[in-house]
Amino acid sequence: MAPRRHGIGLVGTGYLGKAFALGYLSAPIIFGPDIGAPELVTVAASTAARGPQEAAALGFRRAAADWREVVADPDVDIVVVNTPNYLHAPVALAAIAAGKPVHCEKPLGLTGAEAAAMTRAAEAARVPTMVGFNYRQNPACALAREIVAAGEIGEVYSVRGTHNEDWAADPTLPLGWKTRVATAGYGALGDVGSHIVCILEYLLGPIARVNGHMRTVHPRRPAAAGSTDFVDVETDDEARFLAEFASGVMGSVEASRVAVGRQMALTYEITGTRGAVYFTQERMSELRLFRWDGAKRARAGFSTLLLGPEHPDYGRFCQGPGHGLGFNDQKIIECARFMAAIRDGTRASPDFREAMHVNLVLDAVVASAAGGTWVAVPAAA
Amino acid sequence: MAPRRHGIGLVGTGYLGKAFALGYLSAPIIFGPDIGAPELVTVAASTAARGPQEAAALGFRRAAADWREVVADPDVDIVVVNTPNYLHAPVALAAIAAGKPVHCEKPLGLTGAEAAAMTRAAEAARVPTMVGFNYRQNPACALAREIVAAGEIGEVYSVRGTHNEDWAADPTLPLGWKTRVATAGYGALGDVGSHIVCILEYLLGPIARVNGHMRTVHPRRPAAAGSTDFVDVETDDEARFLAEFASGVMGSVEASRVAVGRQMALTYEITGTRGAVYFTQERMSELRLFRWDGAKRARAGFSTLLLGPEHPDYGRFCQGPGHGLGFNDQKIIECARFMAAIRDGTRASPDFREAMHVNLVLDAVVASAAGGTWVAVPAAA
Amino acid sequence: MAPRRHGIGLVGTGYLGKAFALGYLSAPIIFGPDIGAPELVTVAASTAARGPQEAAALGFRRAAADWREVVADPDVDIVVVNTPNYLHAPVALAAIAAGKPVHCEKPLGLTGAEAAAMTRAAEAARVPTMVGFNYRQNPACALAREIVAAGEIGEVYSVRGTHNEDWAADPTLPLGWKTRVATAGYGALGDVGSHIVCILEYLLGPIARVNGHMRTVHPRRPAAAGSTDFVDVETDDEARFLAEFASGVMGSVEASRVAVGRQMALTYEITGTRGAVYFTQERMSELRLFRWDGAKRARAGFSTLLLGPEHPDYGRFCQGPGHGLGFNDQKIIECARFMAAIRDGTRASPDFREAMHVNLVLDAVVASAAGGTWVAVPAAA
Amino acid sequence: MAPRRHGIGLVGTGYLGKAFALGYLSAPIIFGPDIGAPELVTVAASTAARGPQEAAALGFRRAAADWREVVADPDVDIVVVNTPNYLHAPVALAAIAAGKPVHCEKPLGLTGAEAAAMTRAAEAARVPTMVGFNYRQNPACALAREIVAAGEIGEVYSVRGTHNEDWAADPTLPLGWKTRVATAGYGALGDVGSHIVCILEYLLGPIARVNGHMRTVHPRRPAAAGSTDFVDVETDDEARFLAEFASGVMGSVEASRVAVGRQMALTYEITGTRGAVYFTQERMSELRLFRWDGAKRARAGFSTLLLGPEHPDYGRFCQGPGHGLGFNDQKIIECARFMAAIRDGTRASPDFREAMHVNLVLDAVVASAAGGTWVAVPAAA
Repeated sequence: MAPRRHGIGLVGTGYLGKAFALGYLSAPIIFGPDIGAPELVTVAASTAARGPQEAAALGFRRAAADWREVVADPDVDIVVVNTPNYLHAPVALAAIAAGKPVHCEKPLGLTGAEAAAMTRAAEAARVPTMVGFNYRQNPACALAREIVAAGEIGEVYSVRGTHNEDWAADPTLPLGWKTRVATAGYGALGDVGSHIVCILEYLLGPIARVNGHMRTVHPRRPAAAGSTDFVDVETDDEARFLAEFASGVMGSVEASRVAVGRQMALTYEITGTRGAVYFTQERMSELRLFRWDGAKRARAGFSTLLLGPEHPDYGRFCQGPGHGLGFNDQKIIECARFMAAIRDGTRASPDFREAMHVNLVLDAVVASAAGGTWVAVPAAA
Repeated sequence: MAPRRHGIGLVGTGYLGKAFALGYLSAPIIFGPDIGAPELVTVAASTAARGPQEAAALGFRRAAADWREVVADPDVDIVVVNTPNYLHAPVALAAIAAGKPVHCEKPLGLTGAEAAAMTRAAEAARVPTMVGFNYRQNPACALAREIVAAGEIGEVYSVRGTHNEDWAADPTLPLGWKTRVATAGYGALGDVGSHIVCILEYLLGPIARVNGHMRTVHPRRPAAAGSTDFVDVETDDEARFLAEFASGVMGSVEASRVAVGRQMALTYEITGTRGAVYFTQERMSELRLFRWDGAKRARAGFSTLLLGPEHPDYGRFCQGPGHGLGFNDQKIIECARFMAAIRDGTRASPDFREAMHVNLVLDAVVASAAGGTWVAVPAAA
Repeated sequence: MAPRRHGIGLVGTGYLGKAFALGYLSAPIIFGPDIGAPELVTVAASTAARGPQEAAALGFRRAAADWREVVADPDVDIVVVNTPNYLHAPVALAAIAAGKPVHCEKPLGLTGAEAAAMTRAAEAARVPTMVGFNYRQNPACALAREIVAAGEIGEVYSVRGTHNEDWAADPTLPLGWKTRVATAGYGALGDVGSHIVCILEYLLGPIARVNGHMRTVHPRRPAAAGSTDFVDVETDDEARFLAEFASGVMGSVEASRVAVGRQMALTYEITGTRGAVYFTQERMSELRLFRWDGAKRARAGFSTLLLGPEHPDYGRFCQGPGHGLGFNDQKIIECARFMAAIRDGTRASPDFREAMHVNLVLDAVVASAAGGTWVAVPAAA
Repeated sequence: MAPRRHGIGLVGTGYLGKAFALGYLSAPIIFGPDIGAPELVTVAASTAARGPQEAAALGFRRAAADWREVVADPDVDIVVVNTPNYLHAPVALAAIAAGKPVHCEKPLGLTGAEAAAMTRAAEAARVPTMVGFNYRQNPACALAREIVAAGEIGEVYSVRGTHNEDWAADPTLPLGWKTRVATAGYGALGDVGSHIVCILEYLLGPIARVNGHMRTVHPRRPAAAGSTDFVDVETDDEARFLAEFASGVMGSVEASRVAVGRQMALTYEITGTRGAVYFTQERMSELRLFRWDGAKRARAGFSTLLLGPEHPDYGRFCQGPGHGLGFNDQKIIECARFMAAIRDGTRASPDFREAMHVNLVLDAVVASAAGGTWVAVPAAA
């Protein structure tokens, strides 16, 4: 039987446009033709005028005037929502209404409530969904989960997670729609914090309550590049919180867009009774593992595991160990997994439901920061 | 003029006994004879019977029957308090009453109130004091302070600090007097947390309020090695808290004695508008520095500075850069600084007053953990 | 004007088959449609029977019975030679005879003489060529060259290079055609040594003379997996040599396939009067840079530069710094550069002529190892 | 029985003067009083006039007019030779003639022949000797030897060693007696190369033949600091050589005093059939270990072992693992071992005989560099 054709309609061409184009295009070569047969059909750029050029640049057949046209395009099977945060819901809901699988960027909603509405809509319509927490697809993350789940580090009790970057450290950098809660939902907490929350919940199960603090380090920024007109920044530049997981694991989490010197410090250290795992996305093809059998320590130390063909997915890309995967490779895995889930009638991961819980954690952080105390995270909204 | 003679009386010979003996003995060679002329006079071991053997092993002239005899010994000029925490106050107060300078291990008091009483007594009696936060004496710490104070990383706004070890990760390890609040004051929070708090306050000024969580991961331990008799552990195995400094710097802090795989993870990352500093005591002779001039980044990265003779104190030990200092070298600096302060009539650092504030921060963490909310740290008790 | 169509014919589907398929397919999305319009036309697998399955797996339109059919296929514009070493010359020469650009894996020839013949044929026929030294295409390598060429580390005088892996460390692993000089040309020296030689000559100019040693650590291996029939291994498991560059730079080079624990230790450290550069392909998206202005050292240390959009090519893949490239991304750059060279009528790099000199260096190492003394490397054969 | 008294007479107070003073003074506290009872008796400084000040600074009782007076001093039991290289032989031979144990800095002789003469004299007179290859005394080195000797990394076949520093990278730095072969014996080869050779022979047994290259990167230097008078530099700034060990192990070695950016890059990587060990003295309290059982690799990586009380000697200094030793601690071990050897009537290590072989290796490197070919190292001269 021929692999299922997936016409891809891309809404929003910025930042991750190339990654999505490559992700779908490469998936059948990396994972084999059975994964599905993607076709890059149409794109909606930020303006209709820029559409044709973007379509050509990204290898799509044609350009649409706007996102509605993408959703409505009969050749489009999967709608990719790569827009500013405030458009996630309208585009996704329209796609769901059209019965089309939705591949949406993160954070899913501007709030947990919005994410919950999106989730309910998708589930009611039985529309497959996938959310673009691409670092979750790093084989190192799957390896960490395998190690944790198999009890290789014993019973886990502690974790420290961060996602720190410094892309907004320059106070003269304008942030556009990211300055306002109404359009962005959150600041660093949503932009990068959502990644580390998603990964921690993947590895350790749901976060049950949080106690946090948020802050805008640079509260005024230019309205546009070079502008002398300044706007207030409503969204957080950095957030940090204590977290208690439903399992009893305790931890601390940081998210920052002004962490000068850190460019991709998505890190976690997970500690259990028999060992620990440490990871930093700045060295995305490595995982550090400490194992301890409870006895002498003379030969115990953190080992640096280089990803290789004996680890999840890596061998699809490369037969040699230590040869390294890259940022875009994660999106290939994400696209492949979504097509596989559609093919198999299974849930992709992370789908809207998982991503909704990330939003709920973020909302609890916001509430706890406002009140200065612990706030419970609901299981669902 | 001949350097001042300092007869050293050591109360408690365990763990750091050698470090104190070497510290005083080596100080004049490392820092020059003007620093003072220490003489290792007498020791009080945990029992009178063990005294003579301990004195011989550590190069002291004689052994005392108990700590009172050390304090009273007319040849003793400096009383070193290297006892379990609950004895810090009685020994130190007796030494102060005798008008003798006190070199006390950390944490200073079982509580902030006790530390405050010790501080008041010492200041009233004009007795010089020093507290054994030895990692504070690492030249890398002085270098970090120099960098921060000179504005080399701009205006500081964030910090993350940890002091994680795993010496108590084995739940079959008995903890003796460290299991009880009445004898230890705190668990990991006092044992290791006090170190990172002391360093952070040295680098960034006083912590103003905290919001924390504490936990005993292994709540039952054997009463003694190999015993089948178990006791409740009242003290924390790990603590984590958010911290706001008086300067406005925000941060998070962790302390653990069950952080499997970490043996000396006293770390800090300090972030400012123009750079960052990262340090880990596991690589105690290195400091990582990121500097950014606000422009392009093509050549910006964290630099690993190896301590060398151009940095504070290092050149006293070794003329070659990158040759490395060790754990005991920190104690040499500490002993030298105390003798220099006595000689010069200046305050040593950290003295009782500084150490008292560490206790006050720890108390605020305890209170915040109990109440689940922010607690202000008083400037003094 | 429409971008030039390039029908791709792939000879040999193993190991790097996916990398070539992805490399050509992705190049227009990464580098823009002007780079050329590749079409995956046909493949010749190791046997005709496996052809159709391989073609389907790699996204090629059809399968050829053998390599001659690929070369002769009128839809094929670029012949990719991804075969065992002994087939490089016959396939490449046939493609050249057919006037078709050749993209050949490394090492180019079984000997320098063979590589020279291939080079002469290609140049006589004015056929564009590219050789698959893919690590040369890592943006970190271009960055190192930029730093060296601009004099950022002063006048270079020393280098140490390695390419150590351990894929053949297991003595029960059969090596097939790699056991014999007649079919492989060289052992580790050609497999991995050719990579580091190519990179060092790219960064520092031609190697003028060498003095080396080669050795087969495991001289007998099974004829096939699980076989009890053993064959002699003629080729080297490891080689090391001193090298003098035409520029006067002195260095040492190592190549090994039995370097237990090293999976991708393609490393170099280049030292000049004002600094040094260090690189390891195990952390392929980092370059370490030491710069020294001749004065005090208090803030000098090796900096870890994470590749970012301010460095060569990286920004084509990803707009965020430190997000990381992967092994296959290097092949995308290689394919793109080859198409660009064809389009522009310029020489690709490394082409046959550059690759020929790598073969000449390897031959000189072989001769020096046999004679135990220095051997000059000819400029051309 | 009371521990044996050792009157220490120090000839030459520069560079390592403090290290020797601390080394002997601290040894009984670190290793216990049975190790011996050192007394710092007398010093000979570079001039008689500087003697008293140096004696006071280093804690010695008195100053001698010259080295002959130190040797003749009846209170001196151990003569420490901490002079420029050309004085090692005369001072040591005089001490031997006086029947006094000699603790001599490295390299032992200006040539292998001189070292052999010193060795013969000491052995004929049955005078205990020790040579100051202090990095050999790093517990990490003892740990590496333990691992290699126990077969934990299988059968060793390869090694790479370096001792690279950059203390002479500044061409305006005068080198004094180090510029001339007659006074220094060798350049970087002797200064730092002797260290790595000593360590490699300790770990892997004697080097049997070498093939090397030496070079003076900065052939003219000021006669003195700030002088406009320049002198020729006869000695090498860097040396590199291939080495074959008697055991069959093959390796390469580098030594440099102009390796810009490297301050203490005394490194080795030892590879065997079942693993590898990597060490760098810049992180002197760590050893990296890779172990492989011949099967799957999914959990194999280089582990960073932090020195701790379960490793040789470390526990004498500190009871906590990962707390770190420093440069001067190595000298404490060296002094302690020498006193223990004198006490026990055993050979210290490395003694003159071991150090002599290091000289013989260096001489073979010099000869091979001159002739451009392999040169055998004699077992003894």
